[in-house]
Amino acid sequence: MTDPQDPYLIISSDCHAGLPTEEYRPYLDSRFHREFDEFLAGRDRRREEATRLGIRNEAFADKWFSDNEEGLRGGWDVAQRLKELDSDGVAAEVVFPDADAVDSQTAAPFGVGLGLSGDQDPELGMAGAQAHNRWLAEFVSQNPERHCGVALLPITAEPDKVVAEIHRAKESGLGALMIPSMWVDHPPYHDPRYEPIWAAAAETQMPLVTHSGAAPRHEYGDHLGIYVSEVTWWPARPLHFLIWSGVFERHPGLKFGVAESGCWWLPNLLWFMDRLYLGAHGGKKLSPFSALKRPPSEYLDRQVFICATNTKRRELAQRYEIGVDNILWGSDFPHPEGTWPNTRTWLKNTFHDIPVAETRRMLGLAAAEVFGFDTDKLASIARRIGPTPADLGQPEDQAAVEASWARSREVGRHWLTGNDFPTMGVTAP
Amino acid sequence: MTDPQDPYLIISSDCHAGLPTEEYRPYLDSRFHREFDEFLAGRDRRREEATRLGIRNEAFADKWFSDNEEGLRGGWDVAQRLKELDSDGVAAEVVFPDADAVDSQTAAPFGVGLGLSGDQDPELGMAGAQAHNRWLAEFVSQNPERHCGVALLPITAEPDKVVAEIHRAKESGLGALMIPSMWVDHPPYHDPRYEPIWAAAAETQMPLVTHSGAAPRHEYGDHLGIYVSEVTWWPARPLHFLIWSGVFERHPGLKFGVAESGCWWLPNLLWFMDRLYLGAHGGKKLSPFSALKRPPSEYLDRQVFICATNTKRRELAQRYEIGVDNILWGSDFPHPEGTWPNTRTWLKNTFHDIPVAETRRMLGLAAAEVFGFDTDKLASIARRIGPTPADLGQPEDQAAVEASWARSREVGRHWLTGNDFPTMGVTAP
Repeated sequence: MTDPQDPYLIISSDCHAGLPTEEYRPYLDSRFHREFDEFLAGRDRRREEATRLGIRNEAFADKWFSDNEEGLRGGWDVAQRLKELDSDGVAAEVVFPDADAVDSQTAAPFGVGLGLSGDQDPELGMAGAQAHNRWLAEFVSQNPERHCGVALLPITAEPDKVVAEIHRAKESGLGALMIPSMWVDHPPYHDPRYEPIWAAAAETQMPLVTHSGAAPRHEYGDHLGIYVSEVTWWPARPLHFLIWSGVFERHPGLKFGVAESGCWWLPNLLWFMDRLYLGAHGGKKLSPFSALKRPPSEYLDRQVFICATNTKRRELAQRYEIGVDNILWGSDFPHPEGTWPNTRTWLKNTFHDIPVAETRRMLGLAAAEVFGFDTDKLASIARRIGPTPADLGQPEDQAAVEASWARSREVGRHWLTGNDFPTMGVTAP
Repeated sequence: MTDPQDPYLIISSDCHAGLPTEEYRPYLDSRFHREFDEFLAGRDRRREEATRLGIRNEAFADKWFSDNEEGLRGGWDVAQRLKELDSDGVAAEVVFPDADAVDSQTAAPFGVGLGLSGDQDPELGMAGAQAHNRWLAEFVSQNPERHCGVALLPITAEPDKVVAEIHRAKESGLGALMIPSMWVDHPPYHDPRYEPIWAAAAETQMPLVTHSGAAPRHEYGDHLGIYVSEVTWWPARPLHFLIWSGVFERHPGLKFGVAESGCWWLPNLLWFMDRLYLGAHGGKKLSPFSALKRPPSEYLDRQVFICATNTKRRELAQRYEIGVDNILWGSDFPHPEGTWPNTRTWLKNTFHDIPVAETRRMLGLAAAEVFGFDTDKLASIARRIGPTPADLGQPEDQAAVEASWARSREVGRHWLTGNDFPTMGVTAP
């Protein structure tokens, strides 16, 4: 990629795949088939619950399924999936569970998909996760260069079994691990019981990821607004626990990410944490933060990434505080809140005045590093399907674009660069 | 206040007062004296717990108490308190509990101070709250024009009793109501059981306030950083529940505030909530947000305020998104994390380039409206003790200052003004 007008290598850091639920049966240990039948029998009740909270809108669902019937089969059909990725210009993808976000017809067994939660029955949870993980390994093996499969990891189960599943998943060809956002009544993520798990994830180079979905719904009544307002906080919350308990200091090879929760909250969090850490180290001999050897933002840049999905303009304006390399774009295929099947238009509307070099990082190169994609193998696909900077409305002469963001980039994280506050957005040249 | 160089009328929206704990005995119903003795006996254990989490630093505590011995008596001694307020330039104040944030020597009975929590024993909780409320009413009655006393309100108790305590507190001369940030295992704040309470607060014109302090500490182990990173989220959380369940729509006279939790999180929250609401109303006939008749930011401007305490420069740079009138400054007297006894210097460092007219709102006039202070009665005190704009380093000719913020003010809440992102901070004229 030496010509600045080369097509983009686009990697979606947040896509979804999953079998129609009943088809998971052959991937599930047969001793759990009776429980699986009970789980299948409860589907209607769960759909009713979703409708009650207003997550499911009947009219919207009907239109969505009739408009996109063919493409939605890409949720579990590889050939159809590649067609959809190609038409969106997406060369590769990170594959989370639950293809069907509208009707939950592709829920992994026993609720271990995006609803993965720390209080799941440990045995059933691991069985359901393994069923999905086995299928997913098969699914991604057909074009391994284009998919990074995310194994489901019920991390609150017996640590030995969790570590074994990490190695099993790695050997089967999966590339990342989704852990629950919420530990519920199990030990929080600062607990030493998780140390062997962090070590195994680092050793196998499998990034850990939380994904939005779980939240304390029992508190929300019928109020969808409360759920949506909080559902991005819970997946980011483990960061507080991992950073302050020194997990990133003890496991420098561990990578951790937060998916489909935006990245708008990160500047405030970094500002808040860094000031707390640096303030304590400024005047006092004994710091209450002895588990850390550097400011939280340094661990973040070294080991944390954000699968920010369909990044908003407000977030891009804050990218010098977030860290350009920490923002991993995603299409959320095949979910309706994502950019599919209009990704090309969406990219143009969103990135037209962003420097090309930074766009390349956010749209693909940063994700390639985090998830270990082979960019050489993807280069020819990108050349074939990727939109060019011109397609995104980005001017060939980048000097004015770069200049318009210069002050914002220079100020960056203002608390580290001696500025009182950020300079957000473009300034007149 | 017609001369632009007049001294500021400063109202601290976040101060603290409380008796040395054992002195609450005469204010407590005698039938709870036995439980009170047990509570007193547990103080050492609680202090040890605080030390374990690193909230209490022995060396810091010794220096703080020896440096400020005289002034700290202002936590419960009216004459000393007025002296401290005067020297800080503070004409009036909103009085929360727990004067001693370092050693908890002035904790209200049964833990109902800043740790007020939804799972307190309802009978003991109300008894402890009433003891503090009775003392506080006496305390503020000596100079009612300078203090707004905040009654403690254990809102998860029997609703009839809660409503009765609102009226009792109002009649006793108190002016606001502190409710728990966390309902724990009690009904969340969207529950209809609270309706008579919201109605009574609106009827008596007593603003409801949460204050930072409570958090799920049992999850944090020994990690102070986790506590500090989350302790501002829990007091703001009730906003999600009140806004989306339509409490502000049904009770237009109700005011709600969040104290000592910063205001840096508010722009993101408003952006997120407004987009959710406006997006749902854009294309669909049936909105899942039928409890609301206007975007969340309109309720916020009408009924919500932030006791932002010692506002940070980063927050002031975002004030056109937050809403200048929603930011209520506070000194946090007599807590060590506040600006006392160096408020004058602190104000100069923080407000020097902020327009005078906006500074007047944030330092006092907005708080006067929310808490019902009589600015006529405070005028002579302000003239005697208040710093002038010149004392804050603010230029007499405000034209250049106003111009430097013009673009930022014009863009304001960018999602409502047709801009892609905020313009934060000053721009060259």
